[in-house]
Amino acid sequence: MKNNWIIGVCGGSASGKTTIVKRISQHFGEDILVINHDSYYKEHSNMTYEERSKLNYDHPSSFETDRLVRDLNALLKGEEVDVPVYDFSVHNRSKEVTHVSPKQIIVVEGILVLENKTLRDMMDVKVYVDTDADERLMRRIRRDMVERARSIDSILGQYAETVKPMHEEFVEPSKRYADIIIPRGGENEAGIGMMISYMDHMLRGKI
Amino acid sequence: MKNNWIIGVCGGSASGKTTIVKRISQHFGEDILVINHDSYYKEHSNMTYEERSKLNYDHPSSFETDRLVRDLNALLKGEEVDVPVYDFSVHNRSKEVTHVSPKQIIVVEGILVLENKTLRDMMDVKVYVDTDADERLMRRIRRDMVERARSIDSILGQYAETVKPMHEEFVEPSKRYADIIIPRGGENEAGIGMMISYMDHMLRGKI
Repeated sequence: MKNNWIIGVCGGSASGKTTIVKRISQHFGEDILVINHDSYYKEHSNMTYEERSKLNYDHPSSFETDRLVRDLNALLKGEEVDVPVYDFSVHNRSKEVTHVSPKQIIVVEGILVLENKTLRDMMDVKVYVDTDADERLMRRIRRDMVERARSIDSILGQYAETVKPMHEEFVEPSKRYADIIIPRGGENEAGIGMMISYMDHMLRGKI
Repeated sequence: MKNNWIIGVCGGSASGKTTIVKRISQHFGEDILVINHDSYYKEHSNMTYEERSKLNYDHPSSFETDRLVRDLNALLKGEEVDVPVYDFSVHNRSKEVTHVSPKQIIVVEGILVLENKTLRDMMDVKVYVDTDADERLMRRIRRDMVERARSIDSILGQYAETVKPMHEEFVEPSKRYADIIIPRGGENEAGIGMMISYMDHMLRGKI
C-alpha cells in the first residue's frame, strides 16, 4: 500500500482543468491538497508593472518550478511547507504565503506541469485535460471580458502572441506523457467520476 | 442509483483494448459481461472461403450492429440473449451461440463501437484506447506472424488496403465521442486502475 500520491492535472489555458480540480476538491475536502503551478510564478519586483505585464506567462521559464519540486519533496517527507501566493492584479509574487500540511493525495495543477521532466517524474498519475483550441479561446474571451474587464483586442493579442505559440510548443506536446486524457474539460462527468473513484480507492488503500 | 451500465471500449486494431478489457474481466469476473462487436460479424455462407477472405472486415457494414443493439436492449430489460459466435478460421459466423445473462455492467468492445450512433447513445461511458499507429502496426505484425502464421506481405497488404483507410475514415474520428482517452493501451496501469475503480463504484452503487 502506497502512502502518498502526486497527481498532475495538465491542459491548455481555459481547458477546464481548474473546474475538474474544483470538483475533486469539493468531493474530498481536507483529505487532499491542491497546489497550483501558477502560485510559483517567479518574483519580478525589480521590474515595473508595465514591464511585468508584458512578460510571457505561458513559458516554462516564468515558473520557479525548482521550488515547487522542493516543496513537493518536503511534503512527501511529511513536512509542512509555505506555498507562495501570486498576486495576479500586480503581476508579481505577494509577500503572503499559504502554509500547507502534507496529505495522502497531492494534486498539482497547471498548463506546464507535464512539461517539466523532474516534476513529471514525481507524479504517480498524469492527467491531461484536452479541449479543442477554439473552445478554449471562446472560454478565455468570455472569462477575460467578464471577470477581468479586458478588451477583446488585448485578449486576442495576448492569445496570438503568447498563449497559442506556447501551447503549441510546450503544452500540447506534453500530452504524450499523460496516463489519461479527459476531453471536453469540466463538463465531462464520466472523466471526473473516474478520477474521483480512483482517488477514493487510493485513500482507502485499495491501490 | 443506476441499475445498469453500458461501457464502450473502442480503439484501433492492436491498440491494446482487448488487453484492457481482459484486465477488467480478471478483476470483476462474473460481475460483468463483456460483449465483443466482432462476434456480430455478418454471416456470409453464400460466399466461398476465397470471397469471404477478401471482404473488408474493418468497415461498419461488416457488422450486424442492429442485432447487437437488440441484444443490449434485451439485456437491459433483464432478458438472457444468445450472442453469435464468429469463426475467424473460416471467416464466417459459426452455428454456435453463447448464451449470456444480464449483468449490472456490460462492456462492449470493438474498433467501431463508438462509430455507430445508436450503439454509442446506449453507452453510459465511452472509452477510447489511443495508441500510436506505428505501435499498433508493430503489434499487429508480431501477432499475425506468430499467432496466425501469416506472411509479412499479406499482413502489410491488408493493413494498407483496409485497416489503415478504415481506421482513418471511421475509427479515429469516433475518438471525439469518447469520455476518456487511454493512451498506450494495455500497459497503461493508471488508465486501467481508473477504469476498475470507476466500475467498482458503479457496482457498489456509489455512482
